[in-house]
Amino acid sequence: MPRKMKLIAAASACALMAAVAAAQAQDVTPKIDDPISLRQNLMKDAGASIGMLAAIAKGEAEFNAAAVKGALVALNAVALGFPAQFPEGSTSETSEASPKIWEDAAGFQSAAAKFIADTNQAKGMTITNADEMKQAMGLVGANCKACHESYRVKKN
Amino acid sequence: MPRKMKLIAAASACALMAAVAAAQAQDVTPKIDDPISLRQNLMKDAGASIGMLAAIAKGEAEFNAAAVKGALVALNAVALGFPAQFPEGSTSETSEASPKIWEDAAGFQSAAAKFIADTNQAKGMTITNADEMKQAMGLVGANCKACHESYRVKKN
Repeated sequence: MPRKMKLIAAASACALMAAVAAAQAQDVTPKIDDPISLRQNLMKDAGASIGMLAAIAKGEAEFNAAAVKGALVALNAVALGFPAQFPEGSTSETSEASPKIWEDAAGFQSAAAKFIADTNQAKGMTITNADEMKQAMGLVGANCKACHESYRVKKN
Repeated sequence: MPRKMKLIAAASACALMAAVAAAQAQDVTPKIDDPISLRQNLMKDAGASIGMLAAIAKGEAEFNAAAVKGALVALNAVALGFPAQFPEGSTSETSEASPKIWEDAAGFQSAAAKFIADTNQAKGMTITNADEMKQAMGLVGANCKACHESYRVKKN
């Protein structure tokens, strides 16, 4: 698959996953002393941001550079704050965090570091149209997919 | 001062502080094992988001509902991820974190919880014009001001 197609495929996969996750996930009140609630809300924010980009990519919303910038800044903020929300033993009935997060702490740390670096790069891109936005989505979206495949256990 | 004026004043103060901070702050590469770098980048994201809203409030940028939503989601993501980035002893030459963060941990925790709650509320608001956006900015902006006054030591 050519690079551009790959990027778009990754972005689409991510948008789809985000949409599915957003549809399924219950609203959880964020509580400062409950890292599970904080990370679930961070993923909600990621889903909302990806959803905004996906709507533009699919032609359902008009391209707007400021909206794209806002969504990419939000994804960077999610990436920056997310890794610290997984203290050992922070699991629950509703949490979809896989035990692998703690069993393979170095791998998770490395995936999280890549998410930070890629969103940092994406938010700094000059984006003036939907095609340029799709490049940024691909860069960011590959992280959603890779990390969810390895470190999330889907629950219904 | 009437409530609306107060909100706008708080929003303006916050936008100004964000603009000043953004102008002064050096770019810091976010490193996953360096909470100072993560929180400094989170504050950069907050500054960028507030800056987008401020540009609309000042009439320098056109109102766009998706851009406002993106910025408010970003501010919520900052709020959710920020509090965990202050482990005891995480100070440095460049860090503007006041020692009060640790001396008055309960106060800081309470301010951070308010920031989370207020940004959570703001991102859920239905915002269809700049005036409605200013209400959300006021709600969020009061947090910037209060927390910076108490828990930040300005460095140049």
